[in-house]
Amino acid sequence: MGKTQIGPTTLVYPMPTTLVGADVDGKPNFLAIAWCGIACSQPPMLSVALQPRRYTLRGIKQNMAFSVNVPSVDLVKEADYCGIRSGDKVDKVGVCNFRVFYGNVEGAPLIEQCPVNLACRVVQMLELGSHWLIVGRIEETHVSDDCLTDGRPDVDKVRPFIFIPGPPAHYQAFGDVIARAFSVGLEMER
Amino acid sequence: MGKTQIGPTTLVYPMPTTLVGADVDGKPNFLAIAWCGIACSQPPMLSVALQPRRYTLRGIKQNMAFSVNVPSVDLVKEADYCGIRSGDKVDKVGVCNFRVFYGNVEGAPLIEQCPVNLACRVVQMLELGSHWLIVGRIEETHVSDDCLTDGRPDVDKVRPFIFIPGPPAHYQAFGDVIARAFSVGLEMER
Repeated sequence: MGKTQIGPTTLVYPMPTTLVGADVDGKPNFLAIAWCGIACSQPPMLSVALQPRRYTLRGIKQNMAFSVNVPSVDLVKEADYCGIRSGDKVDKVGVCNFRVFYGNVEGAPLIEQCPVNLACRVVQMLELGSHWLIVGRIEETHVSDDCLTDGRPDVDKVRPFIFIPGPPAHYQAFGDVIARAFSVGLEMER
Repeated sequence: MGKTQIGPTTLVYPMPTTLVGADVDGKPNFLAIAWCGIACSQPPMLSVALQPRRYTLRGIKQNMAFSVNVPSVDLVKEADYCGIRSGDKVDKVGVCNFRVFYGNVEGAPLIEQCPVNLACRVVQMLELGSHWLIVGRIEETHVSDDCLTDGRPDVDKVRPFIFIPGPPAHYQAFGDVIARAFSVGLEMER
């Protein structure tokens, strides 16, 4: 099987589509970000990568807090819009009709319509180059009641989606379950 | 719409299934990791989160290098196996029949059967708690020739999959394309 080098590039599948929120000058704003990863289990932490020019980053620095909201496929237009326009120019909350609520993390606005909402406090900021990597401690996780099954988050009800860089860049839904984790691999030992 | 707090937890959808590789004491080993995120565009960087006890981490520290390999759905058993067993006990490369190759990053073994392979050099290691966040500069990106269309990576040919923490933890394929990115959001302004 042949391989082609396409130059060093950020090609990992899948990346999520998240809406990262912060209060900027006291008003909630949200930015669509695919570059979000989990960083630690205990304490729970995640990372998001933003360009330093981002309006949202101004708010993150003001409060040293931010949110990560996971939209469902129903919100694909709104999510994409939050990746096209800047909060410096438009009121994204108004245009998208987001109902914003807060937990106990000041400066971390949460979107009611998004099934999963994480409120985070900044732990570290790494200036890496074109992007800053913000590591946040997850202080709260909120899940919409209608996305729970037996009290636990149910991905079939959350219906998140994938960002594919393309070209053409696009969004994909989740597909079929293919295997049980921490289980199917045991077949390798048979 | 009601919300329930499920305690602070690392709930972001989707997370990828990657095989992170390193030469440990001179021999290639691979660990299944879902906690991988992109960290920077210029220079290209990514992050992976590992528990400090991981055998693979020993190799990463020895060479200050590692790889990230994106498996296709055909490799779900092998990928899962690499998340169940430790390289301290078994030869995962042998059990999984991985064909290993190297680019120019010493200590970063790449899996030929995985459609996408990134070779990385360590830039930072953050000791966050239960996990270390390793930030790596992506030095090389290799793509299997049969996963290219017009010279570009084609996700329909790569056929990566998603890790869902559950319970029960499982893997899901990618589903339908739902919208064009940086485009569908403009409908919000109509």
